This record gives sequence, C-alpha cells and structure tokens, in this order.
Amino acid sequence: MWSVDPRTGKQREQVGAEATAADVDAAVRAAHAALPALADRDTRIALLRAAADELEADGTRIIASADAETALGETRLTGELARTTGQLRAFADEVADGAYLGVIIDHADTSLTPPRPDLRRYKIPLGVVAVYSASNFPLAFSVPGGDTASALAAGCPVVVKAHPDHPATSELTGAALRRAAAAVGVPQDTVSVVHGFEAGVELVKHPLVTAAGFTGSVRGGRALFDAAAARPVPIPFHGELGSLNPVVITEDAARERAEEIGGGLAGSMTLGTGQFCTKPGFVLAPAGEAGDALLAALTAKVAEAAPGVLLDGRMRDAFAAGVRERAALDGVGAPVAAGEAGENAVTAGILTVDAARLAAEGPHDLLIEECFGPVTVLVRYETAEQAAAVLSRLPGNLTATLHLSAAEGEEEDGTGARLLARLTPLAGRILVNGWPTGVAVTAAQQHGGPYPATTSTSTSVGATAIERWLRPVAYQDAPAALLPAELRDDNPLGLPRRVDGRREG
Amino acid sequence: MWSVDPRTGKQREQVGAEATAADVDAAVRAAHAALPALADRDTRIALLRAAADELEADGTRIIASADAETALGETRLTGELARTTGQLRAFADEVADGAYLGVIIDHADTSLTPPRPDLRRYKIPLGVVAVYSASNFPLAFSVPGGDTASALAAGCPVVVKAHPDHPATSELTGAALRRAAAAVGVPQDTVSVVHGFEAGVELVKHPLVTAAGFTGSVRGGRALFDAAAARPVPIPFHGELGSLNPVVITEDAARERAEEIGGGLAGSMTLGTGQFCTKPGFVLAPAGEAGDALLAALTAKVAEAAPGVLLDGRMRDAFAAGVRERAALDGVGAPVAAGEAGENAVTAGILTVDAARLAAEGPHDLLIEECFGPVTVLVRYETAEQAAAVLSRLPGNLTATLHLSAAEGEEEDGTGARLLARLTPLAGRILVNGWPTGVAVTAAQQHGGPYPATTSTSTSVGATAIERWLRPVAYQDAPAALLPAELRDDNPLGLPRRVDGRREG
Repeated sequence: MWSVDPRTGKQREQVGAEATAADVDAAVRAAHAALPALADRDTRIALLRAAADELEADGTRIIASADAETALGETRLTGELARTTGQLRAFADEVADGAYLGVIIDHADTSLTPPRPDLRRYKIPLGVVAVYSASNFPLAFSVPGGDTASALAAGCPVVVKAHPDHPATSELTGAALRRAAAAVGVPQDTVSVVHGFEAGVELVKHPLVTAAGFTGSVRGGRALFDAAAARPVPIPFHGELGSLNPVVITEDAARERAEEIGGGLAGSMTLGTGQFCTKPGFVLAPAGEAGDALLAALTAKVAEAAPGVLLDGRMRDAFAAGVRERAALDGVGAPVAAGEAGENAVTAGILTVDAARLAAEGPHDLLIEECFGPVTVLVRYETAEQAAAVLSRLPGNLTATLHLSAAEGEEEDGTGARLLARLTPLAGRILVNGWPTGVAVTAAQQHGGPYPATTSTSTSVGATAIERWLRPVAYQDAPAALLPAELRDDNPLGLPRRVDGRREG
Repeated sequence: MWSVDPRTGKQREQVGAEATAADVDAAVRAAHAALPALADRDTRIALLRAAADELEADGTRIIASADAETALGETRLTGELARTTGQLRAFADEVADGAYLGVIIDHADTSLTPPRPDLRRYKIPLGVVAVYSASNFPLAFSVPGGDTASALAAGCPVVVKAHPDHPATSELTGAALRRAAAAVGVPQDTVSVVHGFEAGVELVKHPLVTAAGFTGSVRGGRALFDAAAARPVPIPFHGELGSLNPVVITEDAARERAEEIGGGLAGSMTLGTGQFCTKPGFVLAPAGEAGDALLAALTAKVAEAAPGVLLDGRMRDAFAAGVRERAALDGVGAPVAAGEAGENAVTAGILTVDAARLAAEGPHDLLIEECFGPVTVLVRYETAEQAAAVLSRLPGNLTATLHLSAAEGEEEDGTGARLLARLTPLAGRILVNGWPTGVAVTAAQQHGGPYPATTSTSTSVGATAIERWLRPVAYQDAPAALLPAELRDDNPLGLPRRVDGRREG
C-alpha cells in the first residue's frame, strides 16, 4: 500500500500489502484461536491498559505519521491520541465494573405454576470482530479506536481493515496493540491489520467473523452491511454511514444571539476542514431580519476561514463536485463559494435556499444528502410549519441541534419542548444551544442514530459501545461447581447484578 | 381466511380476510398514529394489565377456539393462556420498574480536557412493530404473545400478521387487545391483526414499520429477514427460526440413570406432539451397554406414546416425509418408526445413527436439520472426541442440554465443566440434567441463540425481550425545563439509573 501525503499528493512510502483471501483467512483463524486467551477479565483489563501505554510510548512517531498521511495537524492528532488512550482505559474500567455483563440470577421456585428452574444469565463475547477504519479519525475510529477497544473489552479478538488513507499509521498502531498483547501474555494475533478493498469484502464474509464495526460512507457501508446480511449465517453489522446533523434555529434565538450562533456554526462546520461525521451540514434558520443577521455573521466567519487540506484527492474532487452540483440548483445561493484552493486545498462555503424548495421530493433533495467537507446548507424558513415540513423529510442522523432563546429554554410546554420532541425521532444525540462536533467519551453518550446514520440501534462511542459484541446466555439448573465465576451465588467478582428481582451492587 | 380443524381436516368457519396492500398500509398508518398515546408509562402499564384481564374474561371462548384450530388440547391451552396473561402483567411490572430505560446521566465537567457537556441518555420506542405469529403457540407466541406484550411495554404499537393455522383465535385475541386499548383510552389501532401471506411481506417492507418479531420456520423467517435487510432503510428483524436443541449424555450419566434419562427424553420430545421449538431433536448418547439401556428405556416410552394431531395437514405431510427421508439414509435405524396414524394423526419415533456418520459433510447432514414433530435422532458416540467432533458441526440452537453423573456435576475442572464450555457457543440456554421444553418467563431467561435459532442476539421470552424495541437517545446540555421526566435530576419517576458513574436505585 502507498502512504500518500495529501498536502502534496505525493507518495511517501510503501507500507503493508494488499491482503489476499488467504491472508484474511489466516488472520481470522489466528484471531479465533486467541479467543480463549481473552476469557479472563483481568487479562483484558491489563491488555487495554497496556495498549494505551504502548500507543503513548510511540506517540511522537504515531502522530507524525498520522499528520503526514491525513494533514489533520499535530494539535488535533495529539488530542485524538489522548482520546484513543482514554477510551482504551475507560473500557478497562468498564470491564472491572462488570455491569455490562448484565448478570441476572433467578433462583428456583417450586411454589410457582409451572415451577421455575434456577436460571442465571450473563453476556459472553460473540467471537472474532471485523473493524473497518475511518478515513477521518486515523486513531480514535481506526486500528486502536473505539470499535477495537470495545471489542477487546468484550473479549473479542479483532481483525482491522486499515483505511487506505493511512496505511503507515495503521501499521504503527497495529504494532503497538500487538506489543501490548505480547506484554500481557495473550497471542499477538488478538489484533491483526489487513489492507485492501477486497480484503474488506473477504473479511465480512468469513465464517469465523461474528460481527463488524464500520465507520465510513453510505455507499461502502451499505455494501458491507448487505454482505453481512446475505451470509449463510448473517452477522450484526454496526455501521456508521453518514449524517446531515440538522440544526434548527428559532427566530427568537436568532434575534437574541445572531452573532454568537453564526460564529459558532462557522467554527463547527469548518472544524477539521469539515470532515467530522458530526459536522452541522443542514441548518434551518429563520427568514427575515434576525436570520439575515445570523447569515451575515456566518458569512463573515466562513469567508475568513483558512483553506484546508482534505484527507485525500478523491475526497477533494468529490467535495468540489458536490458543492458545484448543489450550487447549480434553482434558487440556491452561495454567499461564500466553497471550492478548490490551489492544488491540494479547499475553502469552506455556505449554500442558501428557501425552505419552500424542500417541501416536496425533487432535484433539491440533493441538499438533504451529506456533502463531506467544509460546507453547510442554510435553509431559510418563513413559518414553524414550513420548518417542520422540511424536518419531516430528513433521513436519520447522528445528531440534531436546537438553538433556542433564553425564554424558550425555560418554558416546559412551549416552542422549545415542541421542537425537542420533533428532533428526537431524527437522531441519536440531541443538543440544545451547542454544536455537534466534539463527541464526549462517557457512559451517557449516544453516537449512533436512525439509518443511514447507523445500521443498528447501537452507539460507537461511550461505555455502552461494548454491548455490540456480546450475546446473552442463560444456564438452567447448572450445578454450582460448573458455573462461571460471574454467576455464582457468592459473587466472587463483586459484580452488580439482579437477583430474584432485587438489584445488588 | 378459513379456520380448519386439524383433527378432521375440515373447514370450520370463514373468519377475517386476506389483507390487501392497502389494508396493511392503513393498519400501519393507524398504528403509527397511536404512537404518542403510548408515551405515558402509566397508560402502558394499564394497557398491559387490561389486556391480560380482557383475555381472561374471554378465556373460555379463546381456549375453545384455539383447541378447535390447533388440536393442542384444553389443558395445554389453559396453561398457555395463563402464561400469556402472566407475560403481559410481568411486562407491566418491568415498565413500572423502569430499569429497561437504561437511564445514564453524566453531569457537565469543565475540569476535564476537553470539557464534558451535560449528557443524559435513555431509551425510546422505535415505532410500529410487526409481529409474525407462530403456528405452535396460538396465544403465547401469537397475537397477544410475548412479542406484542414486550413491544407495547416499550411503547410501540403493533401490527400482527396472524398465523393461517388459527385465524379465529387471532381475531378473538386481537379483539380482546383492542378492547383493552379502548378501556384505557388509547386508540384501538394500537394493535391490529392482518391475515395472508402477501400481507406479511407487505408489512415488513412498510416504511413506517421500524422492527419485526417472528417465530416460525427457517425458510419463511429467512425470507422476511432478507426483506427487512434489503429495505431502503433496513430494520431490526428478531426472528426465531429453528433449533435442533442438542442433548449430550455422558457415559457415566447413562450408567447412573439410563431409565430416568430415557424416560425424560421421551417425555420432552413427545410433549405437545413434538411441536415445541425447544424439542430435543438431536441426542448424543454413548455407544455400549449404558447407552443401550438408555435407548431401551427411550424406546419403551416412545412406543407407548399416544398418537397426536399436528397443527395442520402440511406439517403432517412434511413430518412424514422428513422422517422417511432420514430413515432411508445408510446406517440409520428406526427402533420406533414415526409416521402417520390414521388420516390426521402421527405417532412418535426415534432414529439412531453412529456418530461416525456425522464426522464430515455428506448426505447425513440431513440429520442436523430440524424435523418438526415428535421424532428425535439418537447419535451413538464411542469417544468424547467423536462426540466433540459432531458437536462442532452443529448449527446454532435455542438450547443445549447436558446430562452428567452426580460426580461429574461436582468437579470444578472435569468432564462436566469441559462439556459445558463446549455447549455454550452452541446455544442461548444451557441446561444441566433437565429438559429444554418448558421456557420459564423470568428476567434471567434467554430464549434465543446463534443463527438459525435466532436472527439477532436477543431473547423473545423474559424481561429483557423489551430491549428489542428500543433505541437510545442522549440529550446534550438540554435545559432542565425541556428534559423528559425520566432524565430530570430530581428523578420524579424513581427510576434506577447511573449518575456520574454511581448506580442509584
């Protein structure tokens, strides 16, 4: 695989190689063989912490490589590495806590009709997990990212399909994870990295692969989802495919904080050159004066934004074409024209359109498809009903954001409450008076929403991401001596659990 | 639709009608319109309890109708109705408890890098759920069954595709549920019943249907699963498709309790004329004397079993053909020949084969496919390795059962523990020294296992079945006045939750 510098478009070095079907098979079989080594929870805790340590120890080299391959910059990548190691350690804590095992014990009750046997339920790892790396997060959503961390935490070995935009970083981080495995005495093949498009297809079809995690485009993700569903034995496919991340700004909010909201939107949509999956790409703003002031503030800020380099040349071309195609639609304005800036950079832009254009199906539906990169569509609405009509036409999203006036935020049954209820069906995370870029890694996070945002109801960020790689099993009338430690009456692991309907711990 | 008496093969009465695409569309739209009415948890609790009451009030008529359409007998159906009403009430209790909402609150923490916003997560209903009724449980896995009960508990309106084997019972029980809806003041269309094969296909494809539950055959279930996955917006499809329910009997267990195990197996495999999805259909028993004694006990009991009527004529023909085809394989014995008994009944039977015949792919693989009805395959093994080799070739199952000697059940690292570990990957419920027919409705139950037993990792029985119909949503920095009651700091609903990492309630 060629590692390419997107700032110059030049090949940097050749690293790794396209995996053949036999390579993928070998990686999956070796991962499967590592399954028993992950059964012990203390081993998993040690592995996750060692992985964080190894990544930090090689941090300078990893960040330099990631920057050279993605142009995301050292500051951002330093933060992303911290997020990545933080995730690994947070999952170690989740394993130690053990609530994710969902232990439920119902003792036998012969007084019932019919009599109830002894039943004890917890969750076990599914098996080998396939992880598909993202282009836009070479660390936190790639080889050592949240999918890998949560799968290892669950006890699942991982085979990662590297993203072609950062093969060198994938190799470096994969090596760090394999060193961590060796350090804690589990097989290095607990984590493998494979390269190449065909390898990705082989991987999702492999009989020993039991689940997949994916972050990427609707087109690529849907093809893999379809392959996962079409297998003789279908497997869960947790894919994050794309999101418009709609924002609704009320007239009162615009009147109150036009400058602040316009500036905040400009910052969020241009952050990381608009390459976040949570970029606010579709904004309902009021027509009239208050909205005009907001647009003016937005325009001024976006016009000032420095050009940025997209992750690769294909994305740059797709961005330029996507903006051109949208700007050419009837009634679409471009107060700041996005486009190419020199050979390898792009500038941010804004598109505007009246909400009426989106009332019914038509060519303007292109505006309700994600355009990856630093552009957002400002939709001007005349009435609340018009805004609601546009919202009802949107596909599923990772996030939806509401900007309210101070008064609207304080009224229990007013405009704010109504709009929050309207946005909730559209997304997995609903923000008020904030911006969706920046996804906190915490237990209450939900980074996943209705299709196409996500192909399942799961989250890929936060503690509950571990749930994706587990399945429940119940033991009926198993003798005490044969029960796993997690299910014994004396609770040797100190797990939180539900016993005969009573919560403990 | 014609209601048919399987005891006579005669048409009883015409009831309901095949739903057209327009009928299905109307039912789904009406169900969707009922969604807001289910948002209040007290309403859902009242609805579930009223549904149980209405079913009991019309119990005599419902049981008579179900018996006339399925030949399952009054005793069994009286028990099944009690199970059904018990399920509805148990889900009301789960709604009241509220742990299923998975409330997690992480307060803002500006001391962190990056600062953490206020995030509050819980689960909301997906929307309209399609339920596909089972043939073999006209109540507990049909119109008023566990899928419907758990979906209503989650807050999801339901459209049920009735099973053609019991249209009259489907109409009666559907009417009871609709009366319950009216009694608690929610739209009757919260539950609808539709009939007909094409209606089932239309239903899973309807854009407003958000998830499906299914109990039935591999063929029918897989077709609907494929349709659910192929939608423009794919939806979760929780299907229970088929299961061999393997049993492993150790030589020591056979030596200790040949009579008891043989008799127990005969009782379990002929229960309900072998029409339970948990029927033990594949038994690994030792070669040699102890196994011979077990086979003798089994043979004696099965030979004594009274003939029974299968659910419909198509199943009776499929059973007879399935047994014939299996018995004709090289080396397959039939110490008790199953088959047709008079025009509408069948007798139970046993097939035997040496484990060596199943060591590798071949025509004998027919024996590792479910044969619905009162027949089981006794596979005689010479060594533990041979038994293990056969187990490694089995598809996924709802249950797997182990019969051990008293001594094997007491040894922490012996034969029993090794076999339990070997059976765990094969099924969702693992039993020791019991029989898999009879599925307790309780929180620790897991009625679901690796494909084809189930098309997802969920359970269709027990408290956690509610998880299938929910998705998480997180609110970020939402003002207190706008938060749903479930997520407010003062916890007005008294829900168990996790706040800043600490479990409450």
